[in-house]
Amino acid sequence: MKNCTGPALAVVEKSRKVFVGSVDDEGWPAVKVMFFPRRQEGLKIFYSSTNTSSLRVAQYRKNPKACLYFYDGRFYRGVMLRGLMEVLHDQELKNSLWQEGDMTYYPLGPTDPDYCVLRFTAISGRYYANFASTEFIIE
Amino acid sequence: MKNCTGPALAVVEKSRKVFVGSVDDEGWPAVKVMFFPRRQEGLKIFYSSTNTSSLRVAQYRKNPKACLYFYDGRFYRGVMLRGLMEVLHDQELKNSLWQEGDMTYYPLGPTDPDYCVLRFTAISGRYYANFASTEFIIE
Repeated sequence: MKNCTGPALAVVEKSRKVFVGSVDDEGWPAVKVMFFPRRQEGLKIFYSSTNTSSLRVAQYRKNPKACLYFYDGRFYRGVMLRGLMEVLHDQELKNSLWQEGDMTYYPLGPTDPDYCVLRFTAISGRYYANFASTEFIIE
Repeated sequence: MKNCTGPALAVVEKSRKVFVGSVDDEGWPAVKVMFFPRRQEGLKIFYSSTNTSSLRVAQYRKNPKACLYFYDGRFYRGVMLRGLMEVLHDQELKNSLWQEGDMTYYPLGPTDPDYCVLRFTAISGRYYANFASTEFIIE
């Protein structure tokens, strides 16, 4: 297993959006685009804000298995991270991730009950480049 | 249920790539980008070529549950189609989908055993626009 976490991190950090995968109640895969996570710790942890009432939150509460897919269209490179998604309501965390413009999505502000945080913790990943892919573990 | 198959088809037809979802052996969701399908029948059927030896083909043979996700970044609209993915080796079909430049991926030409066709047949869909989404059935 070649060490490709450096190139993978480069693809992730260049991305402005992420395609988020989940599995629904009946075993169907689902994909949705999200803006690039608001806070990130390497390839391991990603935080995003979302609506508590969303379908995706309901899905992750039942089945936390998730993936994040980052894609560099210019150089045909991609990174897929497999991991678990948690739905968090910690007010301090919500405050720290709040951004100007969020009132559009959560009209009641940082304490809006419809505002919650998704935390993704990666377990493993796959890096795609030059028509081949390499699996890697994320410690 | 509002009829949104018209706007959904418009998003699909404007897309140049598609994000394809699957579920692996251990129940993890997976996402990968693919070029826009080579042949399409409305929102119902999509054909793409791929490598027989790819991980994705192995996954779909075990679990055909799939989704296609099309995204219009300019107007924040998206379409997700749920359906079944088949792996086909019919030579006539393979010939009809063959394109110039495919030798890069399948050096032995249209009869290359590593060249196969993925056929996706949609069952239902979801259309995202203006921060809301609508589910629809595909007959």
